[in-house]
Amino acid sequence: MTSKRQMHLGAVPYGTGGPGSHTLWLDPEIPGDASVDIAWYVEMARLAERGRFDLVFIVDSQFITPNSPPHYLNRLEPLTLLSALATQTEHIGLVGTATTSFNSPFNLARRLGSLDLISGGRAGWNVVTTGDAGTAGNYGLDDHYDYETRYGRASEFIELAQALWDSYEDDAFVRDRTSGAFLDRGKQHRLDHDGKYFKVRGPLNLVRSAQGHPVIFQAGDSEQGRDLGASLGEGIFTHAADIGAGQAFCDDLKTRARAKFGRRPDQLVIMPGIKVVVGDTDQEAREIEAYNNDRDHTFDAALGEFGRPFGWHDFRQYDLDAPFPADVLAYGERSFYTRARAITQQAVENRWTLRETVESTRQFHRGEFVGSAQTVAAKLIEWWEARACDGFNIGIDHPSNFRRVVDEVVPILQERGAFRADYDSTTLRGHLGLPIPANRHTERREAVDEAV
Amino acid sequence: MTSKRQMHLGAVPYGTGGPGSHTLWLDPEIPGDASVDIAWYVEMARLAERGRFDLVFIVDSQFITPNSPPHYLNRLEPLTLLSALATQTEHIGLVGTATTSFNSPFNLARRLGSLDLISGGRAGWNVVTTGDAGTAGNYGLDDHYDYETRYGRASEFIELAQALWDSYEDDAFVRDRTSGAFLDRGKQHRLDHDGKYFKVRGPLNLVRSAQGHPVIFQAGDSEQGRDLGASLGEGIFTHAADIGAGQAFCDDLKTRARAKFGRRPDQLVIMPGIKVVVGDTDQEAREIEAYNNDRDHTFDAALGEFGRPFGWHDFRQYDLDAPFPADVLAYGERSFYTRARAITQQAVENRWTLRETVESTRQFHRGEFVGSAQTVAAKLIEWWEARACDGFNIGIDHPSNFRRVVDEVVPILQERGAFRADYDSTTLRGHLGLPIPANRHTERREAVDEAV
Repeated sequence: MTSKRQMHLGAVPYGTGGPGSHTLWLDPEIPGDASVDIAWYVEMARLAERGRFDLVFIVDSQFITPNSPPHYLNRLEPLTLLSALATQTEHIGLVGTATTSFNSPFNLARRLGSLDLISGGRAGWNVVTTGDAGTAGNYGLDDHYDYETRYGRASEFIELAQALWDSYEDDAFVRDRTSGAFLDRGKQHRLDHDGKYFKVRGPLNLVRSAQGHPVIFQAGDSEQGRDLGASLGEGIFTHAADIGAGQAFCDDLKTRARAKFGRRPDQLVIMPGIKVVVGDTDQEAREIEAYNNDRDHTFDAALGEFGRPFGWHDFRQYDLDAPFPADVLAYGERSFYTRARAITQQAVENRWTLRETVESTRQFHRGEFVGSAQTVAAKLIEWWEARACDGFNIGIDHPSNFRRVVDEVVPILQERGAFRADYDSTTLRGHLGLPIPANRHTERREAVDEAV
Repeated sequence: MTSKRQMHLGAVPYGTGGPGSHTLWLDPEIPGDASVDIAWYVEMARLAERGRFDLVFIVDSQFITPNSPPHYLNRLEPLTLLSALATQTEHIGLVGTATTSFNSPFNLARRLGSLDLISGGRAGWNVVTTGDAGTAGNYGLDDHYDYETRYGRASEFIELAQALWDSYEDDAFVRDRTSGAFLDRGKQHRLDHDGKYFKVRGPLNLVRSAQGHPVIFQAGDSEQGRDLGASLGEGIFTHAADIGAGQAFCDDLKTRARAKFGRRPDQLVIMPGIKVVVGDTDQEAREIEAYNNDRDHTFDAALGEFGRPFGWHDFRQYDLDAPFPADVLAYGERSFYTRARAITQQAVENRWTLRETVESTRQFHRGEFVGSAQTVAAKLIEWWEARACDGFNIGIDHPSNFRRVVDEVVPILQERGAFRADYDSTTLRGHLGLPIPANRHTERREAVDEAV
């Protein structure tokens, strides 16, 4: 039985600002402290839930300086935030970013498992290895781990968390009030994991949720990042410049998943992060975009954030009109290296000045998905039908704009049969069409039973 | 100005079971999976809030075996749980247990700071060093830290967290929509802590909440534990066998606080954990207590939990009627050693058998606070007036009983002027009469200004 393919939608609340947008908080509809205001997040999550979105997606960072852009300066820890949202929403998936570089597997598996239970099976984990190298200083290290260690830890960490989530088989708790039996002790399993990076005894003191395990999201775009996504990722957050780039990425990732890891392509839900601007007409939408870009995505803002992939290297020290200083790539080695390398290569190939290179990063904000509700919906469907993606993570920048996405674009997607008219599942796995993973111990037992 | 002394009340939801009570889940009013059921916790927290309690208090443990008593087997991570409660309650303080032995200061300060912001300044942190030695195995260690390391880490960890919470002065965020100024950069402070156990750069990417810092709770009863409480604790969770023991403990702790650490005695709020049973008459309450003790606090349950202070040593292997095997104390060295030593000493002094020793631990459940609502209220006031405590942490065992505490005992306390008739504060510090700590950087600046 194959069910009809459905588009998947995530909402990414920016709070006081987002990528390249340092002045979002000037919008009078956005509280100046939105990034720590739970009422604001509740409002945005409920709005996305009204639009039948699959999930809200909370990004993160943990390294700041006095020069950091506004939205980095002050933000709630993602899983703590999502737990508060869990009791204020009913259906929408709750995906939070947490790093495998500066957490312990037992702690994090426990927190994610708790969120999954509290939300009735709606938790997702956006696995990152931390690109901001300076974060290491907040965790007692002089330098961030090298790439190999970062990805080695990530992959061992995820598998370890999944094993911990299987500590109890689903029928382990008998709770028979007549006999007084509480636990079937044979269905509690310790782990005794002793790996390259981690050693964990277990068991985890938590049952599984309605969806079995939290959904694993992943975003890395390096070779190691893509392999991690293809092997263990279930949701993929990515960026795609155009429909062709989206198709190439999807094809690469799903081919890797199948060829290298023996997975089914539909076990990977690929959702690029996009920016949407809705107007009454295409012309009006372009005008709104231009106005917002002038205000939110200034050259100064772009320059202020430009250093992030290069370990927050300060580019204000260079002559803007001299050739791009290509040796800065060294600063990116333990940061967002893939991105730093791509920027550097492009600058060198095109013989750009620093100014031209910074300008080129602003192009991200000149969008595909800008127009009337009809135009935007058609574009979303075009990408999705062309298999440039399985859905989209839509940034919530200006609330008035996101309200138009929910109230005007989503109904068209629904009308065209591309998107659910109502939730037909209670879990995030259900929304995304992902299977509930079998408990490894039950599976093993059943395999033995069959063999007998 | 001195405000009238007020009694403080905390509620400790047991879920499926509590100390020495392994069969609480047999109560049909308690869901069999209460310890992972958010609706259950919301109901209990709201009940306590209806009673104008200062706080709910969430205990914790992270080490289990198939033989662990029911309430250890399966429980939500405390801070994740409390964040979900934060948006379901309005006034009540939210105190969660987290260990300094198996967490990173930056992560935990961030999570507690986030909970404090989400709850509008209602967060408290019950600092533990982890008594269950086996927990170490879940964090890559073969053995738990020794006492000196445990308490050295705890004290450095708390001061580090408090310093991180001061990363921003209260007026650091300008957010001037006219000028576009967002942050007063001189009011963001990094830490560059390089201590015996931890190295943390900072700053923390979070503003302070309405109460400045989460309230520090502490419960250790060893010499080191008492010193930690006297130096850094603001709320103290303890146990007192009788009014005299309570007075001696309060006197000791408040004297230490003043003499050794120069603190004011009212900056320490001491709240022993107690068990309350309310009946229509004293006689009926005694009958309920006896019935519950027979059912909940059986000898088998006591024997099953008896090993906890001794590193969950299994006492079922010994002859119950032989003398207490005093050399088991060695198993307690990296666990709840103070408790293990007290039990062992008492057994040796009284020449008890193992059976008699286990029996003696059941006496905890034969309570002082058992009787009609009038009797219980009078007893609470007697302890509080005698300064055997500043308030009580009342266990929520049977909900029907806790409802009588809220609906029958609390009104008498209110009538007698011992307990608030309504909340007159929005923060946990406000409820407890604790001052908002000044931001160390602002204080320093003001001191300099005054000196000029």
